[in-house]
Amino acid sequence: MKTRVAIIGAGPSGLLLGQLLSRQGIDNVILERRSGEYVLSRIRAGVLEQGMVDLLHEAGVAERMDAEGLPHDGVELAFDNRRVRVDLKGLTGGKTVMVYGQTEVTRDLMEAREASGGTTIYEADNVRLHDLESERPDIKPYVTFEKDGETVRLDCDYVAGCDGFHGVSRRSIPGGRITEFEKVYPFGWLGILADTPPVADELIYARHARGFSLCSMRSATRSRYYLQVPLDEKVEDWSDERFWEELKRRLPDDVAEKLVTGPSIEKSIAPLRSFVVEPMQYGRLFLVGDAAHIVPPTGAKGLNLAASDVNTLYRLMVKVYQQGRTDLIPSYSQTCLKRIWKAERFSWWMTSLLHKFSEEEDFATRMQQAELDYVTSSEAGLTTIAENYVGLPYESLE
Amino acid sequence: MKTRVAIIGAGPSGLLLGQLLSRQGIDNVILERRSGEYVLSRIRAGVLEQGMVDLLHEAGVAERMDAEGLPHDGVELAFDNRRVRVDLKGLTGGKTVMVYGQTEVTRDLMEAREASGGTTIYEADNVRLHDLESERPDIKPYVTFEKDGETVRLDCDYVAGCDGFHGVSRRSIPGGRITEFEKVYPFGWLGILADTPPVADELIYARHARGFSLCSMRSATRSRYYLQVPLDEKVEDWSDERFWEELKRRLPDDVAEKLVTGPSIEKSIAPLRSFVVEPMQYGRLFLVGDAAHIVPPTGAKGLNLAASDVNTLYRLMVKVYQQGRTDLIPSYSQTCLKRIWKAERFSWWMTSLLHKFSEEEDFATRMQQAELDYVTSSEAGLTTIAENYVGLPYESLE
Repeated sequence: MKTRVAIIGAGPSGLLLGQLLSRQGIDNVILERRSGEYVLSRIRAGVLEQGMVDLLHEAGVAERMDAEGLPHDGVELAFDNRRVRVDLKGLTGGKTVMVYGQTEVTRDLMEAREASGGTTIYEADNVRLHDLESERPDIKPYVTFEKDGETVRLDCDYVAGCDGFHGVSRRSIPGGRITEFEKVYPFGWLGILADTPPVADELIYARHARGFSLCSMRSATRSRYYLQVPLDEKVEDWSDERFWEELKRRLPDDVAEKLVTGPSIEKSIAPLRSFVVEPMQYGRLFLVGDAAHIVPPTGAKGLNLAASDVNTLYRLMVKVYQQGRTDLIPSYSQTCLKRIWKAERFSWWMTSLLHKFSEEEDFATRMQQAELDYVTSSEAGLTTIAENYVGLPYESLE
Repeated sequence: MKTRVAIIGAGPSGLLLGQLLSRQGIDNVILERRSGEYVLSRIRAGVLEQGMVDLLHEAGVAERMDAEGLPHDGVELAFDNRRVRVDLKGLTGGKTVMVYGQTEVTRDLMEAREASGGTTIYEADNVRLHDLESERPDIKPYVTFEKDGETVRLDCDYVAGCDGFHGVSRRSIPGGRITEFEKVYPFGWLGILADTPPVADELIYARHARGFSLCSMRSATRSRYYLQVPLDEKVEDWSDERFWEELKRRLPDDVAEKLVTGPSIEKSIAPLRSFVVEPMQYGRLFLVGDAAHIVPPTGAKGLNLAASDVNTLYRLMVKVYQQGRTDLIPSYSQTCLKRIWKAERFSWWMTSLLHKFSEEEDFATRMQQAELDYVTSSEAGLTTIAENYVGLPYESLE
């Protein structure tokens, strides 16, 4: 087999990159270790920045999102039994975010790929990347994988590693060639999905002495709620009743009394991590999204950062294939990283601001409280939240 | 002896409070453990917020400051061999700061007190506070001290503890009645004063891989520079030559080459600490300034916070004596603390942003860098610095 861009991973990043490239006539093949059903069953993020919404339009996959997605003009911060609204639209000159589940984005992209006849190989086992870096222009990379017991070779010009934190792409880079930066937080998020109407029209990020909580949603009838829990907590120990009771205790009274509870349709605990690898490229391999960086979910930046990497790589490939601009290739990593580090900062800051770190009322706790008091009482402070939440501008390649 | 307000400490807070009270006809006596010469010899802060400048005007001691002080419309942040100006005036709707040494403020206040005939007792030994809290209105506090070998008793209605972090006032509150919040930083500031022209018209706060530095000034011919140093560093190990060399290495090239060096006239190392005590009052004792809270010097908030406490206590005393509003007395601490915690946050944040905490290029270092990149590239970010630097509004009592 032969293609121009081998895309490793059929999550939303790989599918979006494939779709954008295909529309520009740049041939690509997507390899995915799992089945399509498995990919669709993963419950993930649901808040899309303006930049990602625009990119989905550019990819021609925005029809259902435009019809079913919920544009949000604001988010709320709750603390001290009160709420402060961050007027995203008003503070950013009109920018908003779109609530539309990652699962839905993935489904739309899968359907578009199927319609366009693009090749996606699911259940591709033992994916291996070869000859990623060579000084000889005639030596190009290739990918091998096993499909139905056969070993297949896929020749290509470039490899896009869209296969997440645990994928093979980053692990294919020799250790001495990259530096990893990491912070692991001493807690996780216990999340549930329920077919109940959301407690509020906008997301509520809540700080409380018992720990952080988040009221989110996927649609007008499907809610997503999270609780900060210790890392060693077991999902089995959290009945739906216990979850709802704990959530109510952490929310302002006026929110708690409106909460509609119901049976959960999904319940899981995710750890929180900040992670960045530098550089994000090695020869003809480009890392995209979670393969190169992880943010804690506070601030909803994970999927959006992947989309901004896709945007950068897509525009780079277009310049390479349509204008012969291979000179731009070395700038991929630094272009991505400028925006990534700022989003890492915002995610770390939102996490630090709203979670419980200590059992004691100590100096650090007071700093959290003072920071919340300050940013929510200052238009400039609220604007820093708003402009990061809707997403900082995409960086351009040149 | 008998007075209305016994003021402990003849530093700038005590003197300013005394001056403001005297002008309203509220009798007060200041007790100071040291001599006037000693007080004047302390080299301290030199950047006054608009609010403090206004208060000095209200106290009638602004004439020399208006003539000799240097109004500053901006400050600079230096990093990555470049500088970004924070346009204080432009970003805050016209607010500025005044560069005028604490020593000069103290001298002006001393002269004003002498001219008005107010009582200041210097070299008052063994100051002790008595009967600070009583439920019987006929039992009022009194202060005892030794002067020239005699024990003197000073009866009063209220005691203002303006005697700094190590003073007797805070130590006079029973341990169980207050809570202390503290953060000690793993470095100090080595400062020198030199009769050389300042390297720039505005202050420069510089982040560098070798550590933080600050270019400040007291006047057009007197400079004040600081270097972050390890806590165990000895002043004796820092010749003037070594200081200037190290400073040059930490500044952007275009600044370093303009630096005019010369013999130091003062050189010392100060530790950095964040400290707050809650509440700031106990019965009829009110803690003011450093007696209740310490900030690291990054951001120049120490003297200014003391001035805002003085402002609160002064207005409270006026309401008590002119309108009989003793009901307001319990609100002193919470009124002060609202503003103090925000200034503590800003000082901690500026310190965290600009100092070297780790030998490694780790995640935290990258967060510093990303924070600097973000705040200096966002108008909202720059505004958060500017509005805190010029000083948040004074809180009112009611």
